[in-house]
Amino acid sequence: MDIGIIGLGQMGREMAARLIDSGHALTVYNRTAAATQRFRGRARIASSAAEAAGAEVVITMLADDAAVESVWLRQKLIPRGIHVNMATVSLALTRELARAHHQYVAAPVFGRPAAAAKGELDIIAAGPKAAVERCRPLFEALARQVFVAGETPEQAAAVKIARNFLLATVIESLGEAFALVGKAHVSPETFLHILTSTSLAAPVYKSYGRQMVEGAYEPAQFSMELGLKDLELALSAAREKGVVMPTAELIRKNLLDAIAQGNGRKDWTALAEYLGSKGSG
Amino acid sequence: MDIGIIGLGQMGREMAARLIDSGHALTVYNRTAAATQRFRGRARIASSAAEAAGAEVVITMLADDAAVESVWLRQKLIPRGIHVNMATVSLALTRELARAHHQYVAAPVFGRPAAAAKGELDIIAAGPKAAVERCRPLFEALARQVFVAGETPEQAAAVKIARNFLLATVIESLGEAFALVGKAHVSPETFLHILTSTSLAAPVYKSYGRQMVEGAYEPAQFSMELGLKDLELALSAAREKGVVMPTAELIRKNLLDAIAQGNGRKDWTALAEYLGSKGSG
Repeated sequence: MDIGIIGLGQMGREMAARLIDSGHALTVYNRTAAATQRFRGRARIASSAAEAAGAEVVITMLADDAAVESVWLRQKLIPRGIHVNMATVSLALTRELARAHHQYVAAPVFGRPAAAAKGELDIIAAGPKAAVERCRPLFEALARQVFVAGETPEQAAAVKIARNFLLATVIESLGEAFALVGKAHVSPETFLHILTSTSLAAPVYKSYGRQMVEGAYEPAQFSMELGLKDLELALSAAREKGVVMPTAELIRKNLLDAIAQGNGRKDWTALAEYLGSKGSG
Repeated sequence: MDIGIIGLGQMGREMAARLIDSGHALTVYNRTAAATQRFRGRARIASSAAEAAGAEVVITMLADDAAVESVWLRQKLIPRGIHVNMATVSLALTRELARAHHQYVAAPVFGRPAAAAKGELDIIAAGPKAAVERCRPLFEALARQVFVAGETPEQAAAVKIARNFLLATVIESLGEAFALVGKAHVSPETFLHILTSTSLAAPVYKSYGRQMVEGAYEPAQFSMELGLKDLELALSAAREKGVVMPTAELIRKNLLDAIAQGNGRKDWTALAEYLGSKGSG
């Protein structure tokens, strides 16, 4: 398949490499040209976003709403074929792109760059049925599992936002619980082992809990600042839909406080360390 | 083993039956005698708590701190051998009983009456090493897994309190997330399937999520009122240890509000329904 990719950040470049390895013909574009070096000789290097947008399917993997807007909406750029946005963006921007583009698929992913490199992402797709089906070969190259959330792009965006909010609640609540059992002289190892051997046996409790036990917060796999962005996406979605999300408000405030104390570049699981440090000693 | 059991409520009676079936000699006591009927001919029916407390090991399975205090502390009752308290009680009461009794083991359980009946509880034990080891045969009759949290009874109580707090955070956060995706017209089934097929694949997300999808809140498996009691145990533990638990405060308030609206007898997962009903429509 003839695929364009706009955005060669940590995720985008691993996805591009994986798609090339899977036999797809790629045109890559990045705002700063240095990131395209790695693809010299393996893909067509586009000199503008418009060039990449001429592909049969164009994927965007950009940092946030502002970056997506600057590529597509400010320039009034229209994709030739299907536009697949795999980044985490707001519901409002999702609706705007769906209105502006002929065939728009929201396909945010669960997983980090290492998973993208191995084709082990989880993809949540939503959009016009035929467009989603047309994208299957590229999803299958990138993903371990593909879920279809519905035919309206906003549905996939909402799933991604709500799930990242749930990850934040795991961090916040584990942080509070570790602080409590620590003061009762329970070994954090023992506590984590008990939790993840019983009804909280989930990959996220295991991995986040492990980071907390080891204090492994730098380098960040997902920074507090990115976490804050995701909480703000949840709150803006809640506001426009008329939903109460008091936990999201609380965690947003705790992340802001921790960032104000100089922790913004640490992994977002370091919120546990920050909560622990707030006790009376 | 010669075992006494004080408290034949929903959990206590299933545990007693299981211990008898496992070949242990039981003496059972309950404040209201009717609950002992089921054990006529199968166990010795004690006419006082003191009689049951004369066993080699005496288990108490009572509703809350007040019930435990009224059996042991008000009457200044002292067990002959090992006292194993399997109920969820406060850290403060745990310390008091550990001071008052020669051999005190805190052994709270994870699991509902049906699991107790099948010997599939998870038991978290803490207390003097020799006493915990002496209890192994009875733990093994009741449990799928036995975890030792340490040699101080308070350690097991803290694990149980912190873990029940984490269960409450799963309910609160899932409730908020379901409300959000619902307003974006995502099927709750699809959302739950995605969550529990990816990094939130834990038994508690599956079971609580299922109850929310089906609105299966009555009869309660664990009521909002019991949930509120457990949040209050977490907050009193946090207060005495000097730990900040803002999520526990938030969920306590939401449970109180939901109970004030007449939902106290519903399952505590009905907090999701209450949170959903608070949106703007």
